[in-house]
Amino acid sequence: MTKLIGNAVVGQSGGPTAAINATLAGVIRGAFENSDTVKKIYGMRNGVEGLLREDLVDLNEFFADESKLTALEHTPAAALGSCRKKLPDPDSGDEIYEKLFNIFKKYDIRYYFYIGGNDSMDAVAKLSRYSEKCDYEIRFIGVPKTIDNDLEGTDHSPGFPSAAKYIAVTVGEIIRDCAVYTTKAVTIVEIMGRDAGWLTAASSIGRVVNGIAPDLIYLPERVFDLDRFYADVAAALERHPNVVVAVSEGLRFADGKYVGEGTQSGVADAFGHKYLAGTGKALELAIRDHFGCKVRSIELNLCQRCAAHLQSAVDVEESLRVGRAAVAAAIDGVSRVMMGIQRVSDEPYATEIDYSDISKIANMIREVPDKFINAEGNNVTDECARYLLPLIEGNTEPEWKNGLPVYCII
Amino acid sequence: MTKLIGNAVVGQSGGPTAAINATLAGVIRGAFENSDTVKKIYGMRNGVEGLLREDLVDLNEFFADESKLTALEHTPAAALGSCRKKLPDPDSGDEIYEKLFNIFKKYDIRYYFYIGGNDSMDAVAKLSRYSEKCDYEIRFIGVPKTIDNDLEGTDHSPGFPSAAKYIAVTVGEIIRDCAVYTTKAVTIVEIMGRDAGWLTAASSIGRVVNGIAPDLIYLPERVFDLDRFYADVAAALERHPNVVVAVSEGLRFADGKYVGEGTQSGVADAFGHKYLAGTGKALELAIRDHFGCKVRSIELNLCQRCAAHLQSAVDVEESLRVGRAAVAAAIDGVSRVMMGIQRVSDEPYATEIDYSDISKIANMIREVPDKFINAEGNNVTDECARYLLPLIEGNTEPEWKNGLPVYCII
Repeated sequence: MTKLIGNAVVGQSGGPTAAINATLAGVIRGAFENSDTVKKIYGMRNGVEGLLREDLVDLNEFFADESKLTALEHTPAAALGSCRKKLPDPDSGDEIYEKLFNIFKKYDIRYYFYIGGNDSMDAVAKLSRYSEKCDYEIRFIGVPKTIDNDLEGTDHSPGFPSAAKYIAVTVGEIIRDCAVYTTKAVTIVEIMGRDAGWLTAASSIGRVVNGIAPDLIYLPERVFDLDRFYADVAAALERHPNVVVAVSEGLRFADGKYVGEGTQSGVADAFGHKYLAGTGKALELAIRDHFGCKVRSIELNLCQRCAAHLQSAVDVEESLRVGRAAVAAAIDGVSRVMMGIQRVSDEPYATEIDYSDISKIANMIREVPDKFINAEGNNVTDECARYLLPLIEGNTEPEWKNGLPVYCII
Repeated sequence: MTKLIGNAVVGQSGGPTAAINATLAGVIRGAFENSDTVKKIYGMRNGVEGLLREDLVDLNEFFADESKLTALEHTPAAALGSCRKKLPDPDSGDEIYEKLFNIFKKYDIRYYFYIGGNDSMDAVAKLSRYSEKCDYEIRFIGVPKTIDNDLEGTDHSPGFPSAAKYIAVTVGEIIRDCAVYTTKAVTIVEIMGRDAGWLTAASSIGRVVNGIAPDLIYLPERVFDLDRFYADVAAALERHPNVVVAVSEGLRFADGKYVGEGTQSGVADAFGHKYLAGTGKALELAIRDHFGCKVRSIELNLCQRCAAHLQSAVDVEESLRVGRAAVAAAIDGVSRVMMGIQRVSDEPYATEIDYSDISKIANMIREVPDKFINAEGNNVTDECARYLLPLIEGNTEPEWKNGLPVYCII
């Protein structure tokens, strides 16, 4: 195979994570380490949207001082910015692809790295398909990231372990906080995950470490039944006064309606606005009505995807590794793939980086498997906690200054 | 002065913090270091409620292995449990006081340490007053803790610096997360503080460190005006697309009504429940209606008071010190006081521990002073950020096991 010499471009897309910049740092390090082949690496601002505007950052120049790359590894959210652009079917709409390929040619871009989740992999798959019609050689590699952990083709997605660690630690703290009073109270923690319950399942990890975990855990992989929920909570309140429940934002009733969907009628606030309750809020109100006890709902919200101060060391190491491996694979001639992490062993935890055909991965959703959910559908199994446990291992050591973490802002 | 030899009791009360157990560890260490005077130290479970039930823990026995005290320093929430019991006026209701003093006599308790906020100091003040009528010598010391930082008689309250650090770090992460997209969006972060805006002000700290801080900050010390708010947000949106606003939960309109109060009419969710919006949610809806842009509200909720994984090292050191100093003062004959921290210098940051008459402190609310709030009432001053800055300095190093922090559960 002849060596493909030229430039590279890297972008980030979709929702941020606490480790997406570690992957970016890995790709940049990979390019720097192969500067005989990858002459220059550009960053696209705001993903493919920025690329279309030719809004490119010269990363060789920006990271001439390599110490900035270490800060980048610990900087939350997408340092290059992000977008949620859906590309058209490459067999019908040619215009945008022609524009992109002209930009590739103009900047001599031979390597395209796109860090993202399902929608981003769809964009890479489409670019790959379109490239089959072109006589310009360019290699496309998707690099996975998503806190949702719902990508196929990988044991877990970079970004998920840090979110899982944040959730496990935070829910543990909430449980301790709730334990201080003796009056009956129910606390509902709403966790991200529209279609897959991985993040909510992560709240269970304490159970196999220190016994501190929610009493009940509900995932979107199971139909949510309100009467069964009341019975579960009643049984938990019999055991101790401070019941903590973890729920996925994506819980649905048997009729397919989201638990947090609500009706839009009625006036609810001081300004006369109508609005929807979230899943946690809806269940808070349901419990208050049914039990008349103290209830509180807590939405972990954005914090669960951007808490870089609580990165998992395993996640950052793997995110870096998968970024580097993407560059190595592309130089070796690989294209039209998504990189993946395969678990070789649980104890000691060990992984290998590989890749799979991106057309077979994009737009699939990997749910929490049956064996990870208990028979009652109100908790996860110990097997699930064991799958999650090694992912949250280790803390990173970002630089702190004046009591705050130091970020790399590109 | 004759030495008062006997036992001590310590309790925690009110809302938990991330450092209240460090203060407890300080009191316990102080007692252990003075075992010639303080023969034994008991912990009351759930504050004075547990004391009334004689639900006492022998802390000499529990902490025979002193390494547990180090874990205690890093354990969130009140390890002895808490309560919100209001004691009656000591001049009218004698029954409960008689009961308490009989328990003091039964257990030979000569030292009473109560770690808490305003309500807890009220309880200590009342016990102190009642004790004037008794011929049983016992010394009462209040040890401050509150994330709200609204106690008089101290430069700041133990527990506040850790909450401030959590808020500064988390809001910084949220701002980075919000910065990734190019579409106009407003993110509202609701922070605790019903009557005083200290915690919300803490979101500003990044401004003097790395320039990462909310565009707008609203404290309950200023009347909230919706039209001015719209104008502020419009101006901020002119400057950049991703506007982040920090608001205190206790914001009120000119008529005294809470912004988050809402009306209770109307049906709002799938179950037909009526409910109140919080401040953040109410403003989210107002902005959506007024600007039609993307809006999100985030409530930091319990996490801001129990995030022991993000303790301020200064806070833990001071919390320990104030606990120890309480014991030393009591042995020296001091009673009917609340301990306090006085700032001696900003650079280098230095503090001294002292105490003041508890009857002059209980039930007062220390608000954010005028000089800390800008003229427009939509942000804090640099002077405020400088007051806060040294408090969040340094990270603690709790023990971690299997990716989770190790707690001391009493």
